[in-house]
Amino acid sequence: MTRLNENYLKVEKSYLFTDIEHKVHAFSEANPDAKIIRMGIGDVTRPLARPIVDGLKAASEEQAHVETFKGYGPEKGYAFLRDAIADKVYLSRGINITAEDIFISDGAKSDMGNFLDILAKGLDVLIADPVYPVYMDTNIMEGNRIHKLPCLAENDFLPQVPKDQKADLIYICSPNNPTGMTMTREALEDWVSYALEQDAIILFDAAYEAFIQDDSLPRSIYEIPGAEKVAVEVRSFSKFAGFTGLRCGYTVIPSGLMVRSEDGQNYPLADFWMRRQTTKYNGVPYVVQRAAEAAYTDEGYAACMENIRYYLDNAKALKEALETLGLKVYGAENAPYIWAETPADQTSWEYFDFLLNEAHLVVTPGSGFGACGEGYIRLSAFASHEDTKEAISRLNAIVKN
Amino acid sequence: MTRLNENYLKVEKSYLFTDIEHKVHAFSEANPDAKIIRMGIGDVTRPLARPIVDGLKAASEEQAHVETFKGYGPEKGYAFLRDAIADKVYLSRGINITAEDIFISDGAKSDMGNFLDILAKGLDVLIADPVYPVYMDTNIMEGNRIHKLPCLAENDFLPQVPKDQKADLIYICSPNNPTGMTMTREALEDWVSYALEQDAIILFDAAYEAFIQDDSLPRSIYEIPGAEKVAVEVRSFSKFAGFTGLRCGYTVIPSGLMVRSEDGQNYPLADFWMRRQTTKYNGVPYVVQRAAEAAYTDEGYAACMENIRYYLDNAKALKEALETLGLKVYGAENAPYIWAETPADQTSWEYFDFLLNEAHLVVTPGSGFGACGEGYIRLSAFASHEDTKEAISRLNAIVKN
Repeated sequence: MTRLNENYLKVEKSYLFTDIEHKVHAFSEANPDAKIIRMGIGDVTRPLARPIVDGLKAASEEQAHVETFKGYGPEKGYAFLRDAIADKVYLSRGINITAEDIFISDGAKSDMGNFLDILAKGLDVLIADPVYPVYMDTNIMEGNRIHKLPCLAENDFLPQVPKDQKADLIYICSPNNPTGMTMTREALEDWVSYALEQDAIILFDAAYEAFIQDDSLPRSIYEIPGAEKVAVEVRSFSKFAGFTGLRCGYTVIPSGLMVRSEDGQNYPLADFWMRRQTTKYNGVPYVVQRAAEAAYTDEGYAACMENIRYYLDNAKALKEALETLGLKVYGAENAPYIWAETPADQTSWEYFDFLLNEAHLVVTPGSGFGACGEGYIRLSAFASHEDTKEAISRLNAIVKN
Repeated sequence: MTRLNENYLKVEKSYLFTDIEHKVHAFSEANPDAKIIRMGIGDVTRPLARPIVDGLKAASEEQAHVETFKGYGPEKGYAFLRDAIADKVYLSRGINITAEDIFISDGAKSDMGNFLDILAKGLDVLIADPVYPVYMDTNIMEGNRIHKLPCLAENDFLPQVPKDQKADLIYICSPNNPTGMTMTREALEDWVSYALEQDAIILFDAAYEAFIQDDSLPRSIYEIPGAEKVAVEVRSFSKFAGFTGLRCGYTVIPSGLMVRSEDGQNYPLADFWMRRQTTKYNGVPYVVQRAAEAAYTDEGYAACMENIRYYLDNAKALKEALETLGLKVYGAENAPYIWAETPADQTSWEYFDFLLNEAHLVVTPGSGFGACGEGYIRLSAFASHEDTKEAISRLNAIVKN
């Protein structure tokens, strides 16, 4: 008789953003005239840049002709895209990552979850709190032992290397979702040393790298010497190029990163990821890979950066507005997220309800990201300028009343 | 210290088609002038139908404008596509599957592999031999107990319900890859009865359903009463509409299909698949879902069926040619695969080498699909008419020499 993976009974029944959606839906039903502004989920709103759409359409037309039709693609992704990434993201910045180390996928979320397939179960895993729920849920599903790293105002919301704690796997997201804070070089050096010492793997989520404005902050973990022996870096076109609906990302596994079997032998981790992907995956659509390639042309890249600037302007305006309200506000400078302390005595969900009812604003309750997020809310900077402006005047109106 | 999932050491080091690729590459290097014809991997060669490309391009243009831009999509796929599938594939054929039961994905291969995430480990799994390697490998990776169902000439290459064997999970692929044989209604009824008796799940792979010409053969397992309580059906646009490079498929989990926890409680299986997909996946690109929708318009569907006819004509011609060579040939009538016995005393790989060297034809060695495939080769009918004709004259030339 078929039995369930019992670990699935231990995860929250529904995904945080599904819960929020239900609340918003109920409010909307009861208040059909309210114009709701969404600053909850981290979805982009700017359309795709023209060079990207042109790349997508040209590749689509290729699929209509027998001479240029493409069926199954290379398992790791097309060389044209892996080469473009290796060149623009790594080599041109002096980082020694080659196209061979890059595996194209449909997004960071898939890779983050699927990556656990190739590792043993029952691992000791270090995860920040608050955190992007996917790290937590995927590890619960595998039956791993999770050790939380509290991220609070007193440590600048950055995870600290623990004392007397062994670790097999460490999640680091920088710039961070949900707090909008970014790891310094020194902080990352500490983590790389610790991982080398522990023979652990760091899963480095760089999905928001494009938002980094401060040049002293690392954009890739491979800027840290030794990281190529311990770190897997996951990246995405979702935020950099607005691909949340087009789906493309990639995972970097350097050839020198080894993993051990029970009998003590070392194997290149990349070989097992390759085996997993060739067995359970068939790659990203050719047309999407051509669209992603277009994001690295001069024109495409400039258009992407213009959108990033657009969202960062929103972040700045929101941060200032919330500060005017008297809230303590974090993030927003090198990230599209604003992390704000709720007014005295209000829980995250209470303040969520308050903002939904009084200002028709949807934010994300910080407690949805973990216990240490209680007493905070997250705002995303991905709305339009117009909606952001409107949201700010509604926040101001609340103060005046 | 990070350890490996030890099960990965038990699967073959590389994927069958990667091995073939290496052999072909070596031959090609040694014989640069040889014009190789590929009848190995099951990749389509006909370009996408015009209505599908037009759908893809129109949706791409939508992504360029703020008013029509789409970011993250609904987790199960867009309603427009799930509704089209429910209507055209099921309801219009009198099968009671609704849009709610349908989960859109990037393809059957992903779903087949990822589906095991939500089940317990150490299951008793029944798998045909020969078989599509993905069923075998994904179950080895999970540490399940595999029981092989020999498919031989004496049983028409169809898996038979075993006596005195318990089962949790049963894989059935019809029309079959690699043998090209199709399950009869009676054979499927036997399997559904057995699954009901065992409280087991049937994973029914209908990727080649579009090739069925004989109206007495079931196109969906849900044509069999009771299947809605035990069967998950996986389908794909890869062969039906030529989407091997565009990536779209879907999995059907009827709401009445229950799975049990250790403490004996029953849960709807679909809830756990939904939880898995929302946590580890972000859906199929909007543009690809619009392209898939176009395959169900009258014009789109007719164009897809024209391509199916094209491949079936190849299959028929190849079958006849191989019979002329004196080989025993199976399949090819309701499927794009031809399953042929090798000439006396030759193993599958020997005959593979012979055909590569003498006729510059790439086929798939039957033994690559399992021990019971030894002594057979698989040909795919997906080449062009011209290449198929050329392959046939090369085969005839071999006989004459």
